Amino acid sequence: MTFASRSEHRAWLATQAVLPAGFRAGSGRLDFVPPETGRPAQMTLSVLALDRPTSSFAGAFTRSAFPGAPVIVGRRRMEEPRLGAVVVNNKISNVCAPGGVAAVERIAAAAAALLGFAPGEVLVASTGVIGWRLPLDEMVAALPGAIAALQAETVLPAALGIVTTDLYPKVRRVAVGDGSIVGIAKGAGMIEPNLATLLVYLLTDLDVPRIELRDALAEAVDPTFNSMSIDTDTSTSDSVVALASGAVPCPDRGVFRSALGEVCARLADDVARNGEGVHHVVRVSVRGAPDGALALGVGKAVVNSPLVKTAICGNDPNVGRIVMAIGKHLGVHAPGLDLGGARIRMGGREIFAAGTFRLDPEVDAALVAYLREAEMYASRPTEGGRFAPPIDYPPHERVVDIEIDLGAGAATAVVTGTDLTHEYVSENADYRS
Amino acid sequence: MTFASRSEHRAWLATQAVLPAGFRAGSGRLDFVPPETGRPAQMTLSVLALDRPTSSFAGAFTRSAFPGAPVIVGRRRMEEPRLGAVVVNNKISNVCAPGGVAAVERIAAAAAALLGFAPGEVLVASTGVIGWRLPLDEMVAALPGAIAALQAETVLPAALGIVTTDLYPKVRRVAVGDGSIVGIAKGAGMIEPNLATLLVYLLTDLDVPRIELRDALAEAVDPTFNSMSIDTDTSTSDSVVALASGAVPCPDRGVFRSALGEVCARLADDVARNGEGVHHVVRVSVRGAPDGALALGVGKAVVNSPLVKTAICGNDPNVGRIVMAIGKHLGVHAPGLDLGGARIRMGGREIFAAGTFRLDPEVDAALVAYLREAEMYASRPTEGGRFAPPIDYPPHERVVDIEIDLGAGAATAVVTGTDLTHEYVSENADYRS
Repeated sequence: MTFASRSEHRAWLATQAVLPAGFRAGSGRLDFVPPETGRPAQMTLSVLALDRPTSSFAGAFTRSAFPGAPVIVGRRRMEEPRLGAVVVNNKISNVCAPGGVAAVERIAAAAAALLGFAPGEVLVASTGVIGWRLPLDEMVAALPGAIAALQAETVLPAALGIVTTDLYPKVRRVAVGDGSIVGIAKGAGMIEPNLATLLVYLLTDLDVPRIELRDALAEAVDPTFNSMSIDTDTSTSDSVVALASGAVPCPDRGVFRSALGEVCARLADDVARNGEGVHHVVRVSVRGAPDGALALGVGKAVVNSPLVKTAICGNDPNVGRIVMAIGKHLGVHAPGLDLGGARIRMGGREIFAAGTFRLDPEVDAALVAYLREAEMYASRPTEGGRFAPPIDYPPHERVVDIEIDLGAGAATAVVTGTDLTHEYVSENADYRS
Repeated sequence: MTFASRSEHRAWLATQAVLPAGFRAGSGRLDFVPPETGRPAQMTLSVLALDRPTSSFAGAFTRSAFPGAPVIVGRRRMEEPRLGAVVVNNKISNVCAPGGVAAVERIAAAAAALLGFAPGEVLVASTGVIGWRLPLDEMVAALPGAIAALQAETVLPAALGIVTTDLYPKVRRVAVGDGSIVGIAKGAGMIEPNLATLLVYLLTDLDVPRIELRDALAEAVDPTFNSMSIDTDTSTSDSVVALASGAVPCPDRGVFRSALGEVCARLADDVARNGEGVHHVVRVSVRGAPDGALALGVGKAVVNSPLVKTAICGNDPNVGRIVMAIGKHLGVHAPGLDLGGARIRMGGREIFAAGTFRLDPEVDAALVAYLREAEMYASRPTEGGRFAPPIDYPPHERVVDIEIDLGAGAATAVVTGTDLTHEYVSENADYRS
């Protein structure tokens, strides 16, 4: 898929954002002054609501040892009989802030009263700066506006409302029979999810019971969100939540599972493509590994190597750095493994086999051209040396394809990552959060 | 220690570089055209020679599963009865290149013939681009010049000759009785050593037997080179080698060990301080951990987090990212650990205790000032948006001090790291290697 402009991308997003039956979405904004800095700030409150609470819902949350208060409360919500709405704020993540859990419950109670639900039927999520307190009074005052804005046509207000440093909203839809699965995702930095991820909401009108939905979500998360990394950093707020309204009969459970997996895979790719400062998305396919953990570890070592990432940013097929990253991981986790049969390909071209590199000026030139082709944009510094992405839509969906065959077993893994650019440094260093 | 200029730093280096008795150092340059790119390049050959081969030598090498040919041969050299010289080239690392091991042996034989030693008494090391072949004929032709340049006054020609992207040479000297230990190090990127490190040569005239030297080196490496990271990337060529000429009686073995540890610690700090694009050196002290591996892991997770690193680059005391990094590591490696007693300090100020952040505008302003004070230089983009460090000497030796008490045990670790800056991206992405 390619997009020539922001408006072309937005037109396509509208086709993805059609709400499944039984759901409404809305959002509202508020101004506040965080006491941690004393400087004015803005926040968006997004609401996803079911027409009536459902017993079919599922969630997966961050494995961080310092989870945010919404994750602590969210885990408890998974034990409730029904869930009816999700309230999400951006700007502040409510992690290790004094009174964080009480703040979550106050927002849930206020939203529940407005929606006619029980407080335990409202899930709250927060994303943004870690360490600050939520502007609780301002948020409760803004809730009626956000709930008054609920409508049943499009999920786009919520997809737009949950973003922070994202350049554009992320929405994916797959139709199943007369129903659909629609997912939205937020996330651009602090992304190496672990057994959960970023903020993702998956809405379906298909009638799938809770146990089936939970199984399907658990199965979908590992090869998608749990196999990607933008910057190795695992968020304190990672959450994936699926909600089924049951308004439409489910024609086939297998088709539903594969559709849910497809929505997750496309959203995970969207998150990588829109990662902070990303010029290239990198897909590392590992095979021939002794076990799955080593296959995944090698893939992660390659996509997380700052030197591999910066080389790809520079359209530099520095394949020595790929071998370095593989050697770094296997030297620690599988010392003594026979790598005599290892092979590496980039863009379909063999660059390493039988223990030695296969490099010459012709291969080098072809790989440079391949990397340029996969680049979404080139850096253009603004005055003062600050770098900002010149686009706010994904111009194409090409990836840098790296295939690694360790020749030492039958296990495989596919890992998605990104390059490391001046725009990432500017986003995270050039101004105070 | 502070330096106001390059010449002040060089004058101090000269005082550190006095060769111990029984050693000579020299270097020579050569031009060549790597067939992998077809573009002209330059290389420096450095030689460290003993007046006569010694039985007292020690080494530690990279744990990479793809070690360079000099590491493969170097491990065998450790079993030889004597070692007499080290030949080091920069520019190309001789890793997984066709005929790599034979190339090492040819250089060793050529140097041995010129020095009057046996080929097994010459250790060869290479550092630079991974994947290219050594220009073997040109190197053998340049050896006589490098060996003719040997002199017994200063190690500086070798300290200068082994560098690649380093901004300045790194030399440290500690006197012991009538003798000394003098170390040189090369390294600026691809640095998270593992059971060995970068290229480090430690020369001493003190009469210490082989077994004692090997013990002392093994003891010195873990808390110094193995407790640092610039970019998480472990080199294929990491080597630390110690050579004792035995020309001077050793007054006290304990004093020798602690002096060797001090030279290693100072060199490791020098390497971090001169890391690619580094503005700030970060020292993370972890205590209260259940075991040493978790203490080290938490320290590494903090210094390796791209979001912590970019925040420090921006003089942004974004302490939420420190908590994120701790939570990421402990969530995977010690799930369920009680962190209710965890405390974090930056620059001596408490920023986190009893599960919550301690942030207000006054603390924030003080920490910004503290980070500015520890900054070695600020980014100044050149035309075209490329960033290059404006200094080629270390202006001071201040660090950003982060203390983490997990409150969950008695184990400790101290880890040294660096920030992540536009200069790192420019060094590794803005031009082809």
